[in-house]
Amino acid sequence: MSTSETTEMALRNTVFIGRQKPVMNYVLAALTVLNNSPNVILKARGAAISLAVDVAEVTMKRFNSGVKVSNIKLDTEQMPAQDGSSRNVSTIEIELLTEKN
Amino acid sequence: MSTSETTEMALRNTVFIGRQKPVMNYVLAALTVLNNSPNVILKARGAAISLAVDVAEVTMKRFNSGVKVSNIKLDTEQMPAQDGSSRNVSTIEIELLTEKN
Repeated sequence: MSTSETTEMALRNTVFIGRQKPVMNYVLAALTVLNNSPNVILKARGAAISLAVDVAEVTMKRFNSGVKVSNIKLDTEQMPAQDGSSRNVSTIEIELLTEKN
Repeated sequence: MSTSETTEMALRNTVFIGRQKPVMNYVLAALTVLNNSPNVILKARGAAISLAVDVAEVTMKRFNSGVKVSNIKLDTEQMPAQDGSSRNVSTIEIELLTEKN
C-alpha cells in the first residue's frame, strides 16, 4: 500500500469534533465509520476535547457494541492568533476499535 | 502495603483539575507531586477535561524534564442534576511519569 493510500484511509476513518453540533451527530458519524472499518479516530482540539471524550464514552457505553478505546494521543499545535503571533492549542486523538468486523 | 495505604498514596499523587484556576497553578501542582513521586495523575470531568490536557501538555513540553504520558483512562460518572434526576458526565485520568526519580 502506498503512503498516499495509507493517508487517505486514515482520513476516511477520522471524525473531526468541533463545537457546533450536538454529541449525537458525532456519535452517529463514528458508528457509521465503524460499520465499514475496524477502527475510528476522533480528533479534537482546544475546548472541543471535552466533547470528543463525550463522543467516545457515548459510542462505547450507550451503544454497547464491543467498542473499546485502543489508543489516545495528546499533542500541541501552533495556531496563528489574530494579532499575528501564535498560540499553543492542545489536541487529542482517541482511537476506538470494534470487535465486530 | 495495605489497601488503605495504597489508596492514600494514589490520592496524594492526584491533582484534581477544576475550571477556576489558571493552567499554571495546576502545572505547578503536578510538578510538585513529580518532585517526590515518579508519577502524577491528573483527574478532570466535564468541560475541565480540555484543561487537564492543557496541563499535561504544558507539564511535558514547556518543562522539558523527561515527563511522559504513561496512561489515559476515560470514564463516565453519574452526577445528580438540579431537578433530582441524574446526568452522565465524562471523566479523564491522565497519568504522567517522570524518568528523573
